Amino acid sequence: MDIKDEIFAGWMRDDGPETDVVVSSRIRLARNIDNLAFTHIAGHDDLDKVLRTVEEVIKSTRDLADMKIIDLDSLSVFERELLVARHLISPELAQNWERRAVILSEDNESSIMVNEEDHLRIQSLLPGSQFQKAWEMANRVDDLLEAKLNYAFSEDIGYLTACPTNAGTGLRGSIMLHLPALKRTNQIGAMLNAVLKLGLAIRGTYGEGTEATGDMYQISNQITLGQSEEEILENLSGTARQIIYQERNARSVLLKEYRSKVEDVVYRAYGLLKNARILSSEEALKLISEVRMGIYTDIIKGISASVINELMVIISPAYVSKVEDRELSSYERDVKRAELVREKLSSISIL
Amino acid sequence: MDIKDEIFAGWMRDDGPETDVVVSSRIRLARNIDNLAFTHIAGHDDLDKVLRTVEEVIKSTRDLADMKIIDLDSLSVFERELLVARHLISPELAQNWERRAVILSEDNESSIMVNEEDHLRIQSLLPGSQFQKAWEMANRVDDLLEAKLNYAFSEDIGYLTACPTNAGTGLRGSIMLHLPALKRTNQIGAMLNAVLKLGLAIRGTYGEGTEATGDMYQISNQITLGQSEEEILENLSGTARQIIYQERNARSVLLKEYRSKVEDVVYRAYGLLKNARILSSEEALKLISEVRMGIYTDIIKGISASVINELMVIISPAYVSKVEDRELSSYERDVKRAELVREKLSSISIL
Repeated sequence: MDIKDEIFAGWMRDDGPETDVVVSSRIRLARNIDNLAFTHIAGHDDLDKVLRTVEEVIKSTRDLADMKIIDLDSLSVFERELLVARHLISPELAQNWERRAVILSEDNESSIMVNEEDHLRIQSLLPGSQFQKAWEMANRVDDLLEAKLNYAFSEDIGYLTACPTNAGTGLRGSIMLHLPALKRTNQIGAMLNAVLKLGLAIRGTYGEGTEATGDMYQISNQITLGQSEEEILENLSGTARQIIYQERNARSVLLKEYRSKVEDVVYRAYGLLKNARILSSEEALKLISEVRMGIYTDIIKGISASVINELMVIISPAYVSKVEDRELSSYERDVKRAELVREKLSSISIL
Repeated sequence: MDIKDEIFAGWMRDDGPETDVVVSSRIRLARNIDNLAFTHIAGHDDLDKVLRTVEEVIKSTRDLADMKIIDLDSLSVFERELLVARHLISPELAQNWERRAVILSEDNESSIMVNEEDHLRIQSLLPGSQFQKAWEMANRVDDLLEAKLNYAFSEDIGYLTACPTNAGTGLRGSIMLHLPALKRTNQIGAMLNAVLKLGLAIRGTYGEGTEATGDMYQISNQITLGQSEEEILENLSGTARQIIYQERNARSVLLKEYRSKVEDVVYRAYGLLKNARILSSEEALKLISEVRMGIYTDIIKGISASVINELMVIISPAYVSKVEDRELSSYERDVKRAELVREKLSSISIL
């Protein structure tokens, strides 16, 4: 399979609800198989047993049999990193890949990580704001698995997990938000504080620390125990609705007060992505974020948010290295990255 | 006449010799009419008399009668500044415009300023490195005028001028050089010192002080007395040849050692000029210089240096204001400038 066909994943579509602010919604369920040691203390035999057991269930369940089982041992480091960049596996699974697997639905919207922190991490990932649908998808996979697997479960607590912070529902919902206008109007700090006070976690999705490269912020629930799945998701969705409203409002203000300035930022970013010959991933993310803002403020037309989402994967060090299939120096990567971005944008004519 | 047809001047053509490094060559002859006070101490009557006398000579001389006499009093401030930006009159003449005129040949390659520091400043301005031809052109106009005018002249000194530094030949030759590679390889300081030691003057053509915006440097002779016209021009030409050689050498080194870096600079500059919505004249000059370097290093194709030379006039505050025909705020000018640059580049497709 050509590496260039391997970029796409369902969450990159631009037809989800509220994609002007919400990049994607994710549901993750943590499950473990009863009477087998949790992954971090499990020996090779137990890890292998989990893999074999899950594989058999997938193959023997009609509604899951289409899913593709990928043994992480069989992949190169770049291929594993590329799965991370496409948000299909966690960075932790890519780091600790021996006796691990990921099971993917055809559209990549559903996945199951095997032998991550928990034996099973069932994930569904959709474009835009759609927790309810993501929840239904993950829940369905979970039900199908549970019909054949004996999950570690306690009547008092609920699902048992390797780390107590996941116990109970085992549910983590997270939503990736693009907040360039809240950032530029200096409202992001207050917003982050408010989110933390609601008991939610927030982090920059790209780059380190609180400074979110590309103005991307991921919000997720901290609490998995003592609330129902519906309560957890309603809390997240409600918070997301508030932030979406604020971001849209900030965009209106920016456009009303500083239209030329915003246009300048957007078109310069486009001009640089289209022409640069050396591009660090950090600069690329910044420029991509600026073009994304331009798309959803109708400043720039003829380029879809889907292309922008693909670019976010294309610029990842893993993808750039994978295309060349060898270890590149940081400088070589920056040159190659610029080339790949230009190639992707070469067919685009903005209006 | 549409303002947009008024940009062009002969020096902007890209078919001159050595245009990769030399933008233009200029010859200027200072002359005064005998028995009339020098301009700076002349009363209205004398100034008017100079104007009338010169006008009559032009109109009555078959080989000069095609020249267009432009009374500076009849122009708006933007029109005068635009003549400066096109290098057709000096900033001083635009500042002190009352009872002043400029006389232009059809191709704008020859001009005569009337009542500048001297009664007559005969100029010829050609693209690339061609002092000899420029000298012949100015000399011819000078001979035609001298046939009918009584110049202030002393057997001992030569032509007499308002400022003693111009006396003798009254000749100033100047050459505008584009030296981006000498700048980027940190050789420009040593080169400037060497030029000064040869008794030549050097200045950044755009912007203030020694820091030349757009990497443009103008070199001219200081001495007008005690050397023949041929000696003066040979000294200038020889120095120019040295600098051209050095600049080309520096470009080769840059391309050999840092090709991707140079390409990055060139294409980013092109991408910004093509897309920016707000553009200061200083940034525009910097970007134009970078694209010019790209044209003559064959990095960027499909755009001519002639377009680049026109852009250097288009971005001038005078041109931007003239298009709107009103006083613009600095911010309005920056927005309008970006629009004019995009318009000029809209028909360009780089290869």
